[in-house]
Amino acid sequence: MSDVQEYIGDGLERFTEEIFEFLRIPSVSAKPAHNQDTRHAAEWLRAKLKDAGLEAEVMETPGHPIVIGEWRGAGADAPTILVYGHYDVQPPEPLDLWDSSPFEPEFRDRRLYARGSADDKGQLYLHVKAAEAHLKAGGGLPVNLIILAEGEEEVGSVNLVPFVEENRNRLACDAVIISDTAMFAPGLPSLLFSLRGLAYCEIHVEGPSSDLHSGVYGGPVVNPGMALAQILATLFADEGRIAIEGFYDDVLDWDDETRDAIRDLPFDEDDFSSGVGAVLAGGERGYSVPEKLWIRPTCEVNGLLSGYTGEGAKTVLPAKAMAKVSFRLVADQSPERVYDLVRAHVAKVTPPGVTSRVEELTGGMPWRAQLSDKLKAAATSALLKAFGAAPVLAGEGGSIPIVSDFERVLGAPALLVGFSLPGANLHAPNEWFPKENIEKGIRALAYLYEELG
Amino acid sequence: MSDVQEYIGDGLERFTEEIFEFLRIPSVSAKPAHNQDTRHAAEWLRAKLKDAGLEAEVMETPGHPIVIGEWRGAGADAPTILVYGHYDVQPPEPLDLWDSSPFEPEFRDRRLYARGSADDKGQLYLHVKAAEAHLKAGGGLPVNLIILAEGEEEVGSVNLVPFVEENRNRLACDAVIISDTAMFAPGLPSLLFSLRGLAYCEIHVEGPSSDLHSGVYGGPVVNPGMALAQILATLFADEGRIAIEGFYDDVLDWDDETRDAIRDLPFDEDDFSSGVGAVLAGGERGYSVPEKLWIRPTCEVNGLLSGYTGEGAKTVLPAKAMAKVSFRLVADQSPERVYDLVRAHVAKVTPPGVTSRVEELTGGMPWRAQLSDKLKAAATSALLKAFGAAPVLAGEGGSIPIVSDFERVLGAPALLVGFSLPGANLHAPNEWFPKENIEKGIRALAYLYEELG
Repeated sequence: MSDVQEYIGDGLERFTEEIFEFLRIPSVSAKPAHNQDTRHAAEWLRAKLKDAGLEAEVMETPGHPIVIGEWRGAGADAPTILVYGHYDVQPPEPLDLWDSSPFEPEFRDRRLYARGSADDKGQLYLHVKAAEAHLKAGGGLPVNLIILAEGEEEVGSVNLVPFVEENRNRLACDAVIISDTAMFAPGLPSLLFSLRGLAYCEIHVEGPSSDLHSGVYGGPVVNPGMALAQILATLFADEGRIAIEGFYDDVLDWDDETRDAIRDLPFDEDDFSSGVGAVLAGGERGYSVPEKLWIRPTCEVNGLLSGYTGEGAKTVLPAKAMAKVSFRLVADQSPERVYDLVRAHVAKVTPPGVTSRVEELTGGMPWRAQLSDKLKAAATSALLKAFGAAPVLAGEGGSIPIVSDFERVLGAPALLVGFSLPGANLHAPNEWFPKENIEKGIRALAYLYEELG
Repeated sequence: MSDVQEYIGDGLERFTEEIFEFLRIPSVSAKPAHNQDTRHAAEWLRAKLKDAGLEAEVMETPGHPIVIGEWRGAGADAPTILVYGHYDVQPPEPLDLWDSSPFEPEFRDRRLYARGSADDKGQLYLHVKAAEAHLKAGGGLPVNLIILAEGEEEVGSVNLVPFVEENRNRLACDAVIISDTAMFAPGLPSLLFSLRGLAYCEIHVEGPSSDLHSGVYGGPVVNPGMALAQILATLFADEGRIAIEGFYDDVLDWDDETRDAIRDLPFDEDDFSSGVGAVLAGGERGYSVPEKLWIRPTCEVNGLLSGYTGEGAKTVLPAKAMAKVSFRLVADQSPERVYDLVRAHVAKVTPPGVTSRVEELTGGMPWRAQLSDKLKAAATSALLKAFGAAPVLAGEGGSIPIVSDFERVLGAPALLVGFSLPGANLHAPNEWFPKENIEKGIRALAYLYEELG
């Protein structure tokens, strides 16, 4: 094992350069204008997997391709591990709020700033380098390894589940490992016990057949922008509860033990508050901040657009208005059921004089970890070796919808072990990844492969 | 007089070509990128006023210039008439909803389509040609005439009132005539008895210091987009009333006679409804549609912007949200008082966890006509001659804030006589002006100058 760890220490500068190269490719999956970049990222990754010593190929889907790297040399008796990650990134806009170019990685203040540094290209690549260390310096990997990277995580992973289903024999494994999350705090690694799910939709309100002069027509004509605001305002009730009928029917009330464990974590609310620059007045009364983030559902406006939004005063009565609205779901909610409830609610509260419709965009199931003792012990030992601290159990407010799907299709438990940190500006300007965790993450994953072997 | 009317008939084709030329200049006052075009429109107009036989000059202001044309040849005993209009136009966006280019005038279906055709370049120019007819074919004008055209009507006329105040002696007159409004119906001219005022503001809501990942942070952080929707929703109460405390304190309850006269007009609600393509479910209960349009105040969302509004599902918790919100005011409201009430209301209803602020953009006083019998008789006679129908008294939902200011500063009554038609898409795509009213409008104004002489 020491050769493997020595290889990591010796290669760190090159590994970092390669991460920079990966991050320079603007693989924005949501924007067709970046389709060539997204493919370039896939091809680049395939080549690097091959250089690391895995067999690698780019496999087509109806959307962005999937990259597979495989090494089967550990033998039939050794466990098989499937690593999942994604090489696509969120759109970088608004660009003017970045302190450095989103696709020109830069170290500042012991952080690596770039779109995708944490979510997820940077973290995915740690696995590639951990595998390389074993293959080049350890005489092979202690496990059979499949690294699967998709290019559509940020747009709903629509082609991944069919792909996994079609390739379920090839992808058969004993555990799925995913590094697309954060540690609980600097120096304090964590294993995830839950992820929230997602139901993301657009609410469209339409009124007059074209934009009207707000003076000449204002009064008898119902304003779609105002109607949209009225519809959105009905989504919340008192005490921070979501006011959609039936919304909480499937929400699991966690046991006191878990809730106590969450409350016992060294979660600094003041630090969180100053980190986001806001007073934490949101969410349901009666829950702590980490509970609101991990085990309670939310309703968020992700975008609003209506009428004239440029400079100056255009007196227009807009023909239409749109809101992007998403819900974070918790066990045992499902996006399908939430969409149904939202549709029924919006239909009920739409004022006369306008019409509304709800369009589903993307969704994913919430997830609860079902770790075997062996998996938990291996991960605990590996993280302890790399970080000098045993991991805490923590939840995660974000969604990785594919986690539940992997477990369902492949029948293997998922282990979520990530190396980002809270406040990493995922999906926002100035996304970053802690510089020291490039090395510690690669080391931890190399230890983890060893422990699982 | 017959020479004057003959001149109009003979010159109509040239007059139309000149209107087209005027409309081709994209004098969008709200956009600094069009500053050169806006000046070009002013210079072009000055030249045409000179060609028509008036002395003309372009006068600087801190913003877009003011064009003045004058003819004082009627003598000290003849009345002096000030014509006011504006040579600037609204932004043409959204461009993809225009059936022809906004700045390439085109006749279709007996209509002249172009930005500014009705509001107000097309109508302003009718005065220039009516004056020309008298000057070239009538041996002079029967009145002393001042034509004043500003380039900032669509951005709040901020420099006009100081200009009028500074030049009050030069602009002294017996009446102000403005053609920037519509006739009640095709073939049925009208004199305006009221205009609504305006208070236009932006409501800004700010939450976290930057956009956040809606999964990682959603729950304890208050969403500015949702908070904005909640604030906007509080602006309306039951029965279509505006729920801002004190908002109706200054709203005049019109006498039964006026309300009956409004209800007696041949206003076709079904036609209005199908014209705008919407069910008329808005406004206060207990008022007819024209009452809602003319003598009752409104609150409109003119624009909404927050978060991610492009294609796809970006799971962002936006740092901020903005609404453009405007109020149409009626006698005896004032924009200053309404701004104060709005500010107090928004401060009161802003939820904890976000901050809000209200920015004033532009405002104007509402107006009620105070026509002398002589002015009314002259206008009635002129319109009867040109259209074969006596004018009805009608209100107007839009605002021409300068009307009250002219009356106040110059001490002369304003006569509002316009030749556009309902449904002319002012401030919207496909603005148009009725083709036949180019001729009838010029004729009516030529008769009007005669009657006032």
